[in-house]
Amino acid sequence: MRQLVAIDWGTSSLRGALMTPDGAVLDVRSFALGILSVPQGGFEETFQSCFGDWMQQPGTRCLMSGMIGSQQGWREAPYCPCPASFRDLATQLLWLEPGRLAIVPGLTVEQAGVPDVMRGEETQIFGALQLLGLHDARLVLPGTHSKWVRVQGQQVLDFSTWMTGEVYALLRQHSILARTLPVEEPPLDAYAFADGVQAARQGAGLLHTAFSVRTLSLFKRRSADALASYLSGLVIGEELKAQRLQAGESVVVMGSATLQARYSQALSTWGVRTQTVGDTATWHGLHAMALSLPAL
Amino acid sequence: MRQLVAIDWGTSSLRGALMTPDGAVLDVRSFALGILSVPQGGFEETFQSCFGDWMQQPGTRCLMSGMIGSQQGWREAPYCPCPASFRDLATQLLWLEPGRLAIVPGLTVEQAGVPDVMRGEETQIFGALQLLGLHDARLVLPGTHSKWVRVQGQQVLDFSTWMTGEVYALLRQHSILARTLPVEEPPLDAYAFADGVQAARQGAGLLHTAFSVRTLSLFKRRSADALASYLSGLVIGEELKAQRLQAGESVVVMGSATLQARYSQALSTWGVRTQTVGDTATWHGLHAMALSLPAL
Repeated sequence: MRQLVAIDWGTSSLRGALMTPDGAVLDVRSFALGILSVPQGGFEETFQSCFGDWMQQPGTRCLMSGMIGSQQGWREAPYCPCPASFRDLATQLLWLEPGRLAIVPGLTVEQAGVPDVMRGEETQIFGALQLLGLHDARLVLPGTHSKWVRVQGQQVLDFSTWMTGEVYALLRQHSILARTLPVEEPPLDAYAFADGVQAARQGAGLLHTAFSVRTLSLFKRRSADALASYLSGLVIGEELKAQRLQAGESVVVMGSATLQARYSQALSTWGVRTQTVGDTATWHGLHAMALSLPAL
Repeated sequence: MRQLVAIDWGTSSLRGALMTPDGAVLDVRSFALGILSVPQGGFEETFQSCFGDWMQQPGTRCLMSGMIGSQQGWREAPYCPCPASFRDLATQLLWLEPGRLAIVPGLTVEQAGVPDVMRGEETQIFGALQLLGLHDARLVLPGTHSKWVRVQGQQVLDFSTWMTGEVYALLRQHSILARTLPVEEPPLDAYAFADGVQAARQGAGLLHTAFSVRTLSLFKRRSADALASYLSGLVIGEELKAQRLQAGESVVVMGSATLQARYSQALSTWGVRTQTVGDTATWHGLHAMALSLPAL
């Protein structure tokens, strides 16, 4: 392989990395050109204007992961069913230009008659496994829609989606609780956050515990700033409580530094050890996939 | 007692009933003049213009329940702590005009260091107990913020608030799920609703199960109309699952006919028997309270 253009094209952002054959990142570019900002039929043009120069060197390959492979993206890449290995993904790439430009398929899993899906996270997961040298792992990718993932023998066995980040934002901005919370997100109050996690762990459910943000404010038991962190603890704690965590087990926490810190703190409540992997997991995943392909 | 003007003054609406000494309702008036629509200092004027004519007959008494007794209302009526009886409420009325015009206090309860509150529901509860002739009961008042209540020996022992209606509305209108649901609320699809209740009962939690509305739509497994009912079942089922219901027990379901029907159907999944009481419970509660007061 010559150089690789690794692209993470999501709903709200477009990021690309220019990588050497041995996996070094030479350059990174970010654009506020998520698939929802690109008109249907405009993906090729956007791609050319953002990364055309990188693609000019002969033998350059480009792999893209994320929502770019969805119904609303450049072209739909059918989901790869779980259990799925890295090889399964590589053999089911959707080639837009054979050997040169491809979209990584997402994953799907079915439980109790209900499907679940991911697009983009599969690449981060395999990148993280590679970076950490793990064959078996439990991972969480926190975010608007958190993913909990089980990997065994380098296969994604199953996963589930949790609307944690989105529900936090809805309660924070659009519910009655918004009236008692500061408009700007304050810095994390780690004690209030821990109390929220604990309240979720011992509580009867978020539909009930969330209301305590209102009553604690009504009775002036906590400041508005502390209540924002407390609510974050309630919602993340609700997600963790449902995972039936065992003290002593290890979980790989991915994503932004902010969320890594919150999840690691919350997971420690259950006695769970954490390893963290940042946003470079996507570049590593795409690079490893490019390496596994036949040479051009 | 001569006649009673019974008033239910909430956040978004104002309703009043003119009642005879023996509890017959002579007339009912409704206004879109909830406390959030009345400027601070404007409550007396609003009251006079809506009900002044009813108050003219000598000896007429007026009792008001609901958010009118909150910090944002006419005057703040301190919460009455649980356990609380009907008599406790009557002796802690906040008189605006002694013997003539009073606000019924709300209730508060504290569990694990966290307070919970109600305003207005206490009157409905005692009205329902009166109507049904019950001394002990478990009640649910479904709505934006549902209340689950335990009554023993005609005392409210404790209660809890569930943000069920509000979370449904948030998911329905403001979340990613809104894209796959019809804008207008379709008629209830009882089968889809039942499936939602069942999925909640067996599921790992609403943060996860709610995402299935998206995936079931993505895989075209259910129509948009059916998914609205399914989501309603998921959210109500989540509330019910947390109540540790026992097959064979009896629950009093209050509120609007629509919600009574949904809750009764959902509760039957747990083998729970239901009795229903409509909106007249408030008038009965206020009337019984007026009767218990010394004559003017």
